[in-house]
Amino acid sequence: MTQDATPPTSNLQPPTSNLQLPTSSLRWWGWGTLDQSYDLSHRPNFWPLVHDRLGVSGEVVSPPIEFDTIPLPDSHLPHPDLSDLRRIFGEEAVRVDRLSRVVHAYGKSFRDLIRIRRGEVTHPPDAVVYPTDEAQIVALFVLAAQKHWHIIPFGGGSSVTGGLEPFAPRDALRINQPTITLDFARLNRVVSIDQTSHTATVQCGMLGPDLEAALNASGFTLGHFPQSFEFSTLGGWIATRSAGQTSIGYGKIEEMVERMRLISPRGAIDIKPLPASATGPNLLQLLVGSEGAFGVITEATLRIKPLPAARDYRGMLFHSFADGVDAIRELMQREIGVVMARLSDSNETGASLALSRAPTTRSARLRLRAGQWLIGRRGYDFASSCLMVIGTEGETDRVEKIKKAALEACQSHGGTNLGSSVGRSWLRERYALPYLRDDLLDRGIMIDTLETATTWSNLLDLYGALTRALEDAIAATGSKPFVMTHVSHAYHDGASLYTTFLGAQASDPIAQWWSVKRAATEAIMAQDGALSHHHGIGRDHAAWLAREHGELGLEAFRALKATFDPDGLLNRGVMNLDTD
Amino acid sequence: MTQDATPPTSNLQPPTSNLQLPTSSLRWWGWGTLDQSYDLSHRPNFWPLVHDRLGVSGEVVSPPIEFDTIPLPDSHLPHPDLSDLRRIFGEEAVRVDRLSRVVHAYGKSFRDLIRIRRGEVTHPPDAVVYPTDEAQIVALFVLAAQKHWHIIPFGGGSSVTGGLEPFAPRDALRINQPTITLDFARLNRVVSIDQTSHTATVQCGMLGPDLEAALNASGFTLGHFPQSFEFSTLGGWIATRSAGQTSIGYGKIEEMVERMRLISPRGAIDIKPLPASATGPNLLQLLVGSEGAFGVITEATLRIKPLPAARDYRGMLFHSFADGVDAIRELMQREIGVVMARLSDSNETGASLALSRAPTTRSARLRLRAGQWLIGRRGYDFASSCLMVIGTEGETDRVEKIKKAALEACQSHGGTNLGSSVGRSWLRERYALPYLRDDLLDRGIMIDTLETATTWSNLLDLYGALTRALEDAIAATGSKPFVMTHVSHAYHDGASLYTTFLGAQASDPIAQWWSVKRAATEAIMAQDGALSHHHGIGRDHAAWLAREHGELGLEAFRALKATFDPDGLLNRGVMNLDTD
Repeated sequence: MTQDATPPTSNLQPPTSNLQLPTSSLRWWGWGTLDQSYDLSHRPNFWPLVHDRLGVSGEVVSPPIEFDTIPLPDSHLPHPDLSDLRRIFGEEAVRVDRLSRVVHAYGKSFRDLIRIRRGEVTHPPDAVVYPTDEAQIVALFVLAAQKHWHIIPFGGGSSVTGGLEPFAPRDALRINQPTITLDFARLNRVVSIDQTSHTATVQCGMLGPDLEAALNASGFTLGHFPQSFEFSTLGGWIATRSAGQTSIGYGKIEEMVERMRLISPRGAIDIKPLPASATGPNLLQLLVGSEGAFGVITEATLRIKPLPAARDYRGMLFHSFADGVDAIRELMQREIGVVMARLSDSNETGASLALSRAPTTRSARLRLRAGQWLIGRRGYDFASSCLMVIGTEGETDRVEKIKKAALEACQSHGGTNLGSSVGRSWLRERYALPYLRDDLLDRGIMIDTLETATTWSNLLDLYGALTRALEDAIAATGSKPFVMTHVSHAYHDGASLYTTFLGAQASDPIAQWWSVKRAATEAIMAQDGALSHHHGIGRDHAAWLAREHGELGLEAFRALKATFDPDGLLNRGVMNLDTD
Repeated sequence: MTQDATPPTSNLQPPTSNLQLPTSSLRWWGWGTLDQSYDLSHRPNFWPLVHDRLGVSGEVVSPPIEFDTIPLPDSHLPHPDLSDLRRIFGEEAVRVDRLSRVVHAYGKSFRDLIRIRRGEVTHPPDAVVYPTDEAQIVALFVLAAQKHWHIIPFGGGSSVTGGLEPFAPRDALRINQPTITLDFARLNRVVSIDQTSHTATVQCGMLGPDLEAALNASGFTLGHFPQSFEFSTLGGWIATRSAGQTSIGYGKIEEMVERMRLISPRGAIDIKPLPASATGPNLLQLLVGSEGAFGVITEATLRIKPLPAARDYRGMLFHSFADGVDAIRELMQREIGVVMARLSDSNETGASLALSRAPTTRSARLRLRAGQWLIGRRGYDFASSCLMVIGTEGETDRVEKIKKAALEACQSHGGTNLGSSVGRSWLRERYALPYLRDDLLDRGIMIDTLETATTWSNLLDLYGALTRALEDAIAATGSKPFVMTHVSHAYHDGASLYTTFLGAQASDPIAQWWSVKRAATEAIMAQDGALSHHHGIGRDHAAWLAREHGELGLEAFRALKATFDPDGLLNRGVMNLDTD
């Protein structure tokens, strides 16, 4: 057992400025903020599990580089251009300092973190600008078209699909084309709340906690809680078709958006605020998911709901993954009304148990043992059982009724009620796990997640094929594989699978990761799963987009790209839309 | 009081063929089938209301022309081309007879019926073809590109937006370009039902009753019941973003479609069957609503639900339209779970009462009077009260709970329960009203409907502005206006309005109608309502599409059109997408 690696904060020099920018408090080399970490001190079973499954020692072998030693290339932006930018955005809102350029160089994928931890920041943006209004964005597009700049929209910086990386390989010939990152941190206001229509108009740069706090103060919630909640923005959610943990109850982000404004290099599109319409192709749903390639989303009007008066989150245990899947399917198809049903497979259930906090008092230890004994008595085998966390929110009496109906439905599939302490624990740690990834990277472990979706009738086949593909691909790199999955979001006709895979890093961890990622993606495509369920395409999935939608479908996207961004200023490489 | 006009069936010669085609049994001059009509014999209060409101006598003044006297232009299709078509589709499935060409010349809008009743069929299709597979459609596109044919996809023929008319005015120079109507009547099978995922794969030409019967036989329902249910097809529903009467519970058609196949002149697009994804713009929702301008929908996979074990439909009476609107809003925002809530304004409530069947027994008369007395005692004024029909479907105990909660919510807004006889009567006549239009046209009355949607906070303003605009515009044509509206479909954040307007026909009823239609559409656009909620754009709304979506939005649609149909073979004029 080891301690957390000491974060190399000593070299962090926040930009001297009155501007409070969220990125200045971020771990540039990993997830989240400098003042947080994943507390492993009361989880004695975790490192033994890692050792057992992956065969790694648990020693820190690959800590991040010291910030000052990153060999950062100079900005390509000539001084007169910098002056132009400062005239548009103001002195403070144009950043060319080291930290700003490093923090905006990558998202937070495994591949991104490996590179940044090694100090491989070969193509950082040449400047980062922070607009406060749309006119500044329009002015930037005008300049960019004149000067052949490449613009990268940046929300919270949490992309895990290569959505924020300045240069894709195909752009190798444009190596000296300046890249400007457009960070929306200062477009972070709730514009208005419509108490009658239950909608809120919000600027794109608002982070999850700020948005929820503002809505909560008016008695509402958006109900959108992705794992990245603390460090992702409304604009990013919409641009990538994000899903929150309670999407069963509140919908994916694309269902929440009633209206939005997008500024493209060709001008603004302002979607009408409508509950529904029949006016041709759905223009809104053609801009949602456009990942900054058609324009930048500046504000959106969102369907919001009253803050729930009550909520109930609890654990259920099933004899098998298949039983749990059947239970979720029944919950969905009978429209029981839960807002969340997350079902871990037996591997993930085991990992969750290993990560649970050890009881600190004698009575807690006794309660834990009694509970385990009881579950064993009921015939559940911890090695093969599957944990579901099920959530209900809403009016008090309705939560009671839904909970009862949901428990009955689960019990009819062999589920047993583990009670609400499991739910409380899940709620407490719902955003914490990505911090743990940094500890694993310190220890030379490859860890990544991916997600897909399919119909109920195809779900177990896809699950099996994906798990086998990952295990085989990791083993082929010489590492012991550990693959675990949960059903994360469920629908009438199917569900999503969220898979985490681990193995000891090979000597070239990025090549290793690509070989595993390719195998997993090929398995998903062969089994008709979604290329992505809620993380988007970015640059990492772009090569498969033509297989997802067909060549003609991709051609349609390219025709849209050419309409909105004919000069190719925006997010080159994303979604494989650039034809030059 | 007059009798129905005698339908001029005497001249109808169904094509001699073994092919059973739905269009052969249709009223070519009006709505529905030859064997049905709207029975006015037990509704003694209807014609007096019409006389009182519109000042028309109720005499038949403008019956439809005799079929044989329609001066139909000859087909422009040269004989060799006809032979080519017959080689592709087979002898029987290529029709050039008078009835086929007349029935396919128009949809069922007021403007269409005025013209066809007068025998003004100036641009009928030159041939009608009935594919049984996709290869035939592809072959047709190849021929059409070589020979510069114009192709019009045709489902049930119920379009009310000019969706089926061969020549828009802008095509005047192409007057001799042959038009081939592609009627999907023979693509009418359920391909498969997935009992696990609760989906059905269905061919596009299936009519509502056939589709429901097939699903019901397997224990399922689609739950899509537009007023045109009996005479509209799955492909037409998807192409125009149709909404069924129970859309609150089952969704609009675009929410039901999980997957579809579309054959464009550039090739097929087969959307992957997925419950949700994050793979760029939503390609499915870019094809849904494409109104036959991008390609033809050949089949779709639909989310289906178990046949409801129970249903409860009943009437509620409110003191005012505003009270009823508040009640529906509460039903939606508290997610009470009704599948339908249709609220008529006082004018429509009066018309519904005038259309109700007179009691035929003494005890029924007594019950009616006692009911009316009781409602009066409760303080409801029949001149200003508003009727809501509210429906609940599903598992038996849940229907009971939802009904109770819905009644409480309605009562808290001053609603009183009129009981289930109103609901039964509504269910019995849910598809009947369009037949009545033919009787009104016989009597020289202009009658049309239109629909829009907006947010809750804007709904009453839009309602007021639209009603005034219609009343003023009709009055400006010298006729007494009668305008009535109901809230037809409701959502979390808003609702749709469905408005019927009547007036005595002027000497040029089409010019009169256009002046009224323009005024209504301008009022809707000025008030930020949807250009259409569920009838689509067609040719009639095309001129406003750029205002609905902005010039850049329309440009995006045109870029898609150019991608899928670069030669402009399909549905010219629809949605204003043709640039040559």
